[in-house]
Amino acid sequence: MDIFEQWESNVRGYCRTFPTIFKSASNARQVDEEGRSYIDFFGGAGVLNFGHNNPHMKRALIDFIEADGPAHSLDMSTSVKRDFMKAFADTVLKPRNMKYKMQFTGPTGTNAVEAALKLARRVTGRTNVIAFSHGFHGMTLGSLACTANDYFRNAAGVPLEHVTRFPFGCDIDDLEARYADSSSGYAHPAAVLVEPIQAEGGVNLASAEWLKGLQEFCRKHGALLILDDIQAGCGRTGSYFSFDDMGLDPDIVCLAKGIGGFGTPLAMNLIKPEHDEHWQPGEHTGTFRGQGFSFVAGREALKYFENDDFLKDVKRKGKEMEARLNALAKSHKALGMEVRGRGMLYGLDVKNGDVAKAAVAHAFKNGLLIGACGTGGRVLKLIPPLTTPDEDLDEGLGILEAALTAVGREAA
Amino acid sequence: MDIFEQWESNVRGYCRTFPTIFKSASNARQVDEEGRSYIDFFGGAGVLNFGHNNPHMKRALIDFIEADGPAHSLDMSTSVKRDFMKAFADTVLKPRNMKYKMQFTGPTGTNAVEAALKLARRVTGRTNVIAFSHGFHGMTLGSLACTANDYFRNAAGVPLEHVTRFPFGCDIDDLEARYADSSSGYAHPAAVLVEPIQAEGGVNLASAEWLKGLQEFCRKHGALLILDDIQAGCGRTGSYFSFDDMGLDPDIVCLAKGIGGFGTPLAMNLIKPEHDEHWQPGEHTGTFRGQGFSFVAGREALKYFENDDFLKDVKRKGKEMEARLNALAKSHKALGMEVRGRGMLYGLDVKNGDVAKAAVAHAFKNGLLIGACGTGGRVLKLIPPLTTPDEDLDEGLGILEAALTAVGREAA
Amino acid sequence: MDIFEQWESNVRGYCRTFPTIFKSASNARQVDEEGRSYIDFFGGAGVLNFGHNNPHMKRALIDFIEADGPAHSLDMSTSVKRDFMKAFADTVLKPRNMKYKMQFTGPTGTNAVEAALKLARRVTGRTNVIAFSHGFHGMTLGSLACTANDYFRNAAGVPLEHVTRFPFGCDIDDLEARYADSSSGYAHPAAVLVEPIQAEGGVNLASAEWLKGLQEFCRKHGALLILDDIQAGCGRTGSYFSFDDMGLDPDIVCLAKGIGGFGTPLAMNLIKPEHDEHWQPGEHTGTFRGQGFSFVAGREALKYFENDDFLKDVKRKGKEMEARLNALAKSHKALGMEVRGRGMLYGLDVKNGDVAKAAVAHAFKNGLLIGACGTGGRVLKLIPPLTTPDEDLDEGLGILEAALTAVGREAA
Amino acid sequence: MDIFEQWESNVRGYCRTFPTIFKSASNARQVDEEGRSYIDFFGGAGVLNFGHNNPHMKRALIDFIEADGPAHSLDMSTSVKRDFMKAFADTVLKPRNMKYKMQFTGPTGTNAVEAALKLARRVTGRTNVIAFSHGFHGMTLGSLACTANDYFRNAAGVPLEHVTRFPFGCDIDDLEARYADSSSGYAHPAAVLVEPIQAEGGVNLASAEWLKGLQEFCRKHGALLILDDIQAGCGRTGSYFSFDDMGLDPDIVCLAKGIGGFGTPLAMNLIKPEHDEHWQPGEHTGTFRGQGFSFVAGREALKYFENDDFLKDVKRKGKEMEARLNALAKSHKALGMEVRGRGMLYGLDVKNGDVAKAAVAHAFKNGLLIGACGTGGRVLKLIPPLTTPDEDLDEGLGILEAALTAVGREAA
Repeated sequence: MDIFEQWESNVRGYCRTFPTIFKSASNARQVDEEGRSYIDFFGGAGVLNFGHNNPHMKRALIDFIEADGPAHSLDMSTSVKRDFMKAFADTVLKPRNMKYKMQFTGPTGTNAVEAALKLARRVTGRTNVIAFSHGFHGMTLGSLACTANDYFRNAAGVPLEHVTRFPFGCDIDDLEARYADSSSGYAHPAAVLVEPIQAEGGVNLASAEWLKGLQEFCRKHGALLILDDIQAGCGRTGSYFSFDDMGLDPDIVCLAKGIGGFGTPLAMNLIKPEHDEHWQPGEHTGTFRGQGFSFVAGREALKYFENDDFLKDVKRKGKEMEARLNALAKSHKALGMEVRGRGMLYGLDVKNGDVAKAAVAHAFKNGLLIGACGTGGRVLKLIPPLTTPDEDLDEGLGILEAALTAVGREAA
Repeated sequence: MDIFEQWESNVRGYCRTFPTIFKSASNARQVDEEGRSYIDFFGGAGVLNFGHNNPHMKRALIDFIEADGPAHSLDMSTSVKRDFMKAFADTVLKPRNMKYKMQFTGPTGTNAVEAALKLARRVTGRTNVIAFSHGFHGMTLGSLACTANDYFRNAAGVPLEHVTRFPFGCDIDDLEARYADSSSGYAHPAAVLVEPIQAEGGVNLASAEWLKGLQEFCRKHGALLILDDIQAGCGRTGSYFSFDDMGLDPDIVCLAKGIGGFGTPLAMNLIKPEHDEHWQPGEHTGTFRGQGFSFVAGREALKYFENDDFLKDVKRKGKEMEARLNALAKSHKALGMEVRGRGMLYGLDVKNGDVAKAAVAHAFKNGLLIGACGTGGRVLKLIPPLTTPDEDLDEGLGILEAALTAVGREAA
Repeated sequence: MDIFEQWESNVRGYCRTFPTIFKSASNARQVDEEGRSYIDFFGGAGVLNFGHNNPHMKRALIDFIEADGPAHSLDMSTSVKRDFMKAFADTVLKPRNMKYKMQFTGPTGTNAVEAALKLARRVTGRTNVIAFSHGFHGMTLGSLACTANDYFRNAAGVPLEHVTRFPFGCDIDDLEARYADSSSGYAHPAAVLVEPIQAEGGVNLASAEWLKGLQEFCRKHGALLILDDIQAGCGRTGSYFSFDDMGLDPDIVCLAKGIGGFGTPLAMNLIKPEHDEHWQPGEHTGTFRGQGFSFVAGREALKYFENDDFLKDVKRKGKEMEARLNALAKSHKALGMEVRGRGMLYGLDVKNGDVAKAAVAHAFKNGLLIGACGTGGRVLKLIPPLTTPDEDLDEGLGILEAALTAVGREAA
Repeated sequence: MDIFEQWESNVRGYCRTFPTIFKSASNARQVDEEGRSYIDFFGGAGVLNFGHNNPHMKRALIDFIEADGPAHSLDMSTSVKRDFMKAFADTVLKPRNMKYKMQFTGPTGTNAVEAALKLARRVTGRTNVIAFSHGFHGMTLGSLACTANDYFRNAAGVPLEHVTRFPFGCDIDDLEARYADSSSGYAHPAAVLVEPIQAEGGVNLASAEWLKGLQEFCRKHGALLILDDIQAGCGRTGSYFSFDDMGLDPDIVCLAKGIGGFGTPLAMNLIKPEHDEHWQPGEHTGTFRGQGFSFVAGREALKYFENDDFLKDVKRKGKEMEARLNALAKSHKALGMEVRGRGMLYGLDVKNGDVAKAAVAHAFKNGLLIGACGTGGRVLKLIPPLTTPDEDLDEGLGILEAALTAVGREAA
């Protein structure tokens, strides 16, 4: 670890939570240089939906490299980009009758959000955006203004403006009343930016009704509805989009993390064609918009969605997670824990950041990687690869239970 | 191309300039699906310093994948990250006696710039940043405010603030006079952000004297000097940093593009330790800070700098480029062309965006990929892989000469 | 009127509502060039608390002018300024045991608010201010950002930032919950800026309990409580301050309008001494901070508050107004009118801007000046001089009743 | 002085420079409570162009008050407002063939500037304004962003944005080059805001050529030219406007200070009719837009401009001032003083704030009120009433000479 101590910036974070050096990783496990194996309930913060070194993707990537496939292409057209786009259209868009254009922004979620904000402001001619408490949308200045967490916001160094904040799950009639009144002092919004499931914010689930209310609000007030499905999309919740079956028709959907498949960066916005026309060529650019590896692995990932088998299995394992977590919460009533989640994304709110931190440390020692999220880091977030074998899931949940039991004992 | 027409956003750009579908790429050549081979003077906008599918990197990547190396790790510690950092310290920092911390930001240049701006504002407690005409620093809101080009700025949708602009190469005494006067109305700067060579801005070279003047200005006024070496660094100019041998001691250096080696995203800030202490753990985060492939390929790239052979060759080829471009400018006096550059980064300023565009199109038809930059796209930018074989360099320059001859004839 | 048509800006407003030329004015009446007399329920929007050409003030002003008193003095010390300040301290501050410093800002309410905002930001080192729906605080950029009305805000030409908006009368627990949560995305406030009675906003009354809740919120979160008593202060509500007897201890109180007494401009902030120390000499300046006429007339005005007689009479007349308005509302049930107010400041909310406009026009024709306020101008605002004779009050209310009867008939 | 020490805010300024209590004032003299008479070279910072208690105005004001003239009328039409407007049109506008609308903003200069900025942004749809070093435009947030002095700016508490700064007298070709280049990073300006003579900024004179250059720049780039003639207008420079005879055709002219005549607040923008049409009724409002006293006294003031006698006399006295100041500068060569000015507005730049401060204090002791301006307060500003008798002018200049001799001796 000396090299990291000596040379890496003080800003480094997760390497402090998981103080070891990882050498290899396969599906739901990471192995450190000492040969210790860890079950991964962290899942690259939603990137590794298909596991570390997914064998289909490994094969495809090696073939691609050996065939001198174009690894980097800005936004030139490449064979693999076409194949990815076609597969995405065929597998995801067409079956849902979704008519959207695909924009490949810079390769991370924050680029997608920044691009979406630009377009919404262009389309509406307005500057203000509505975002929500506990929302997380990225670290660059435009996205950061929409992100709610003080710790991140305080690092901006400039006031974060052009965003009006409301509580996640706020009363829609109340919202409507404020914007209907021309003397309420609320600026007309260019967009409502919302995560159907707030992952970093503490695994908070928006109801279909609330999201539909927001959509209706947007339609009425000439604002765009932007769904940030960066962490919860790509199969994580047991459906491709976290908002499938909610009857929504968003103007822009931001995707990243999981769509690159293998842990390679890729970000993509889905944009309604009538809004997309407001873009002029090259207005939002970026060096890393055409990631060959991500198109190859991402295309493999889409195969998981060609029929329902995979998502059914995700749901099945998710139910198992939920049951175990509920039992855990029940057996530690003193902690007053709350279980929230859907598909294979679960939060165990232990209501106390110190308790969560202690549980994370205990779990790490026993071979489980799990992170904390939410206000003050009080929510343990379970976001394992969707391909996690049952036995790893079982073992990981066991380690978590033991950690909470130990921590609960200490607290008592 | 139907797939792209049908599904890709109107914002797409380079695929319009180079209207074909690339299937493979090797060193300085890309090959399309028709089997047509193109010499690549575009070089991934500075990413592909070591050529497409560099054989050393290919080998290392395949080995890494086959060994289940961790492709994605946020900012956890991994063996390959350590190896990269150690090699960077040993090969780049120590020989220069540079004491810096390394921060891996999100994987693209704009993330590096955003992080540098945050830190400079934190360190100084000021909001304003000095940036320069023709500067390019990225597309996210904080970086975009520093970027000069109207076309990009107009897409922001909000006023771009907290930046004071001066001409690139402005008179330092004049700058100093403005900031020395407490009634001049210029806000105390948190930082001066400058590219030693403006690549996108038209291949404009800052003199050592000017940069030293800026550094002195920064020291005097308590501002940080941030050098954005994202496009011109990593060997491009015949030295590792574009500012080597200029006697500079920047507070932060932003690197990206070339350091990932293979075209895989990676971005890193070098930060003086006394500034780095102002970061608190996890204040600037990002999903894609730890890119296994980039560490592997980037570590291979560093081997090119273990002795002087490679950079000598870059300089030799650069001289050849310069000579050919100067001859070309001379032989087309009517166009009034200007040649600017260093190492293997050259701009041929044809003073007219339409002429440049026509030349790009002509060159493409004859098998050369070259891009335009600068105000109105009037500068042809030559940024071929540093590993470009002499015969490809020669052939590419020939195609460029022919294009300009043809365009010149049409214009006459 | 030709001169006005020909030469005055299109922005002119009230002269359209009251299309005549006023030649003289005395107590509660204005007389136009045709010799027509109008009862003034408009009261200079709260300026003319002591009537037009108050005889005591007239005498004092003429004496002052004849004695070559200093009409203009920036913030130099003058005899009349001292006399005003001493009288204000003796009459207003000391009896209430209020320890405040007096800052004479530029002479209008917006200057007072701008100065208060500057100081609150200086004291706290924060930028954000909490303001409320329907709040009115002025037309200059800092105050305008706090003002709620879209019509005014849309004229700013730049985004209005650094303000977080909540509904007037919002739930304090809800407010508290948002600011207690470090991930709610609400910036720490420098101040809460609130009118105890929103006059322009539609005559909305804050409860003592709510204001105390805001004060407690401020104390807890390190924010300053700024009470804008510009329109409702100086005796208007039957007490000197509109918030007398509410148990409040504001950090800053903004006063203007009524304190100049005669309709001459004056504005003053009352500032807790511990905050006032954060001002450095001359940091907030202004040409018209020392208005001799205003000090002279304002000092006369303070005599009204040397004992309780005047305020008792204000309350008595206020009760009369209330009773008449309630009866009016009752007798026009179809209009669904609502009566709100205190002292001699009353709003008759007719719930419809067109109805209000028609009533204003009707009343004008019959010799009553009354204005509309609130969202869409749907609230008739009664803010006659506090010195209005009973017979004028009675006659004016009669004209208003007739207007509403006529308008109600038309609407039916 | 106890009352001021005890009760007045720490922000008070001029009362510290002139530590006495003024009781009366007549023409160019102020008298304190001790009966000490001071010659006034301060002139209310440009307000008192016609002297303290100008006898014509006194008479008119007393008549107005005795006749119950409307002292306060918001923007209702009054007889005195009409008379003022007609006189202004007849005396000032028509003879110059100037076609402008008059907007009465709030009564101080900063209101006029804020209104002008709003309109320029509305007309152009742009946010950015060009302003200059050493410019002074007011203390409210919109104007303050245009004001150059750090001391004032630092009190804002928020970043001051939407303004691009250039040196006063900057090279117009250089300015043009920056805005002609679409990659220079300068936002298209809504307006250029400039004082033809910077008074507070140190008595800096713009050349006609430079101002015409700015005007041409504005026309070319679709920006409005706003001339802030608040301190230097209304006869101060020997012509009504400071820019008379310069061949200028500004879009908006901001007037205040001197137009009220007697030291009573009034501010007015002159707006080209085609721009004025962009105002909607009541969009920029303010309680104190219709100041009866100011209309009465301001109308009297206009009589001074009905023929050339008055301005000729101003020029004659100005020449005398200039000659005396030049002689003074010559006789104190060691101080390296510089004399700048026109009409009866002169600055004596002693190049050192401490020297200026000492001279001000010395002069005060000897019965002269004079202020300092410019960077660090290093310029003594002479702005006596235009009606100053020759003997007072002579005596005042003598006191100033003595002060500088004494200060020069001390410094030696």
